[in-house]
Amino acid sequence: MPTFPKLGILGGGQLGKMLCQAATPWHLPTYVLDSSEQFPAAPYATVFQTGSFRDYGDVMAFGRGLDVLTIEIEHIDTRALHELEQSGVRVYPQPHIIDLIKDKGLQKQFYADHGIATTDFQLFDSKQDVISAVNAGAVTIPFVQKSRTGGYDGQGVSVIRYREEVENKLLDGACIVEPLADIDKELAVIVARSATGEVKVYNTVEMEFHPTANLVEFLVCPAALDGDTDGRATKLAVEVVQQLEIVGLLAVELFLTTDGEMLVNEVAPRPHNSGHHTIEACVTSQYEQHLRAILGLPLGDPSLLRPAAMVNLLGAEGSHGPTRYDGLEDILAIPEVHPHLYGKSETRPFRKMGHVTALGDTVKIARERAARARDALRVIAEE
Amino acid sequence: MPTFPKLGILGGGQLGKMLCQAATPWHLPTYVLDSSEQFPAAPYATVFQTGSFRDYGDVMAFGRGLDVLTIEIEHIDTRALHELEQSGVRVYPQPHIIDLIKDKGLQKQFYADHGIATTDFQLFDSKQDVISAVNAGAVTIPFVQKSRTGGYDGQGVSVIRYREEVENKLLDGACIVEPLADIDKELAVIVARSATGEVKVYNTVEMEFHPTANLVEFLVCPAALDGDTDGRATKLAVEVVQQLEIVGLLAVELFLTTDGEMLVNEVAPRPHNSGHHTIEACVTSQYEQHLRAILGLPLGDPSLLRPAAMVNLLGAEGSHGPTRYDGLEDILAIPEVHPHLYGKSETRPFRKMGHVTALGDTVKIARERAARARDALRVIAEE
Repeated sequence: MPTFPKLGILGGGQLGKMLCQAATPWHLPTYVLDSSEQFPAAPYATVFQTGSFRDYGDVMAFGRGLDVLTIEIEHIDTRALHELEQSGVRVYPQPHIIDLIKDKGLQKQFYADHGIATTDFQLFDSKQDVISAVNAGAVTIPFVQKSRTGGYDGQGVSVIRYREEVENKLLDGACIVEPLADIDKELAVIVARSATGEVKVYNTVEMEFHPTANLVEFLVCPAALDGDTDGRATKLAVEVVQQLEIVGLLAVELFLTTDGEMLVNEVAPRPHNSGHHTIEACVTSQYEQHLRAILGLPLGDPSLLRPAAMVNLLGAEGSHGPTRYDGLEDILAIPEVHPHLYGKSETRPFRKMGHVTALGDTVKIARERAARARDALRVIAEE
Repeated sequence: MPTFPKLGILGGGQLGKMLCQAATPWHLPTYVLDSSEQFPAAPYATVFQTGSFRDYGDVMAFGRGLDVLTIEIEHIDTRALHELEQSGVRVYPQPHIIDLIKDKGLQKQFYADHGIATTDFQLFDSKQDVISAVNAGAVTIPFVQKSRTGGYDGQGVSVIRYREEVENKLLDGACIVEPLADIDKELAVIVARSATGEVKVYNTVEMEFHPTANLVEFLVCPAALDGDTDGRATKLAVEVVQQLEIVGLLAVELFLTTDGEMLVNEVAPRPHNSGHHTIEACVTSQYEQHLRAILGLPLGDPSLLRPAAMVNLLGAEGSHGPTRYDGLEDILAIPEVHPHLYGKSETRPFRKMGHVTALGDTVKIARERAARARDALRVIAEE
């Protein structure tokens, strides 16, 4: 076999599963840690270790004896990662970068310190401190409150539009507060950087959010942007990567304001929902690219071969229980549609249960196909 | 989960591995039978059963309790497959078609009986009968002798060019004898047919053989053919599929003679070496297409998205022993090159140890990239 290092992945959800899939053409063994063998990556890991990536002892036990360690989620016990790094395990993304990113306060401060354009922000230690600031006129309504830690898939965010909402809608705990930006578009740029400093950038993607669930509904690539605006998006994303000196992928979520300003919203140091389409639409998928970057291999060509639209397949409203996917046959009758079913054993309303990438001669065609696919497939609980 | 039937695959080599890979986006469980857990598909099957697909008892034990059974190799105990079919297991390709194809004599007779253009042939029961026919002037030198059963990857074929070779080079056992055709090109057309009769055809591929190993060296797609010739290749391949009424894939190998005649050489009722490029170059890979066909799902679009060249990675001459792949890093630096390492534990000279698919704006570019990749990677034995 090639002399591959022993590779561990913390987290066995859909991103971990797709990392395992990307490893199969090279016959690269994968070790995955997560808390249940019912999770998506379990059948596709070479070795699946049951344990919690939030637990110091479990991460230490898992990481010892591996050569390279990576993540599919930021909410890891990073004390263990720091120790493993010191003991010689290559941990990518680097633990200090995970610490920085998983705390939205530190992340924002990093942008401010490094002259990276981002929305204005204020830091608070508690809900009470925010209320006091509002009362003192130091925070202006409307605003967005985000928990510093623990947010995921639209959780940990509260939008305050009226004075009456302050007492009831504010979240507990340390947080950041941002003015409500006038957003024209939400964009994402995925960048890969290897240990040698080689950098590759994917085409900018444009996100459209579900009106109620606060989750991405459609993602299209390429984004409908003029060349100058697109160039600014790419440049800003690469700037974050260069300043962080991350090894691996960084997904950079951006706001394009109605004034034409390009701002960093937040970042994720791993494969990202906004890069699912790269599996079928790009020369090198984000998953393979991440493996190349962290294994010290040359980075691949990120070029887009074909316009793409991606839609998440969410658990149906009102449906809780053992998962059933209905309508796969109908999806497969639509041209250039690639369904990915994650195999999560339990469905919940709005839970990410799969995704579909549709390709086409134009983004419009791809998007229509993705919409048809989403309408054809329902993720519900078994009766 | 979708209500997938329980799917079994007989054979755990590289074709079985790639069938398992194609099943992962749907989270479709796969059961694989083969004789060693060291084989390529073992780490990627949901359940890997150790046993021989040539053994009646092993195939029966494996097939009972499954809903759909398929193959990655023809050399199966088909008695067991017939019994399983009668007991209600859906066996695709159908066992009587496997019987027909695995015996080159029956296969040839089928073409003759159904008016399908193929090279002329004579059937013989033994080497001695061939010698007698040569002596009687009923067989003319030069000719090709092929064993009726058991041939694979260039084994079971002998080319007789001179009278002196007859005694020494002829193979034992029942065989067919064909005149040595004047071949301009060797082509392959992969066709899928589902149980409902839906048919999809992939673009014609052109094969180039290694001068000494009698194995395909480069495969390029699309083949360099005028429209009329290409149309005749496709038409002939579809004709074979329609006449056989096969469910699943049929890879049809064709000869284009120097006189412009299009002839069926032989067929394989499964994913085929000449379709590896479909993984990256086509909307739907041959592996996914085979799954769709045998599971009763709508067939996918076989369109070629980009010109492709495929090269097999063969075990180096003179190298026997535990496999080492040298040079993966160099391959990954070549644009649009996709290496597939099969992970076979032992290498032997000219054994198929992997393949590389290269894409490009033209076949010429793709082919150059594939050649560079082949030259960069060596499959040798560990010291």
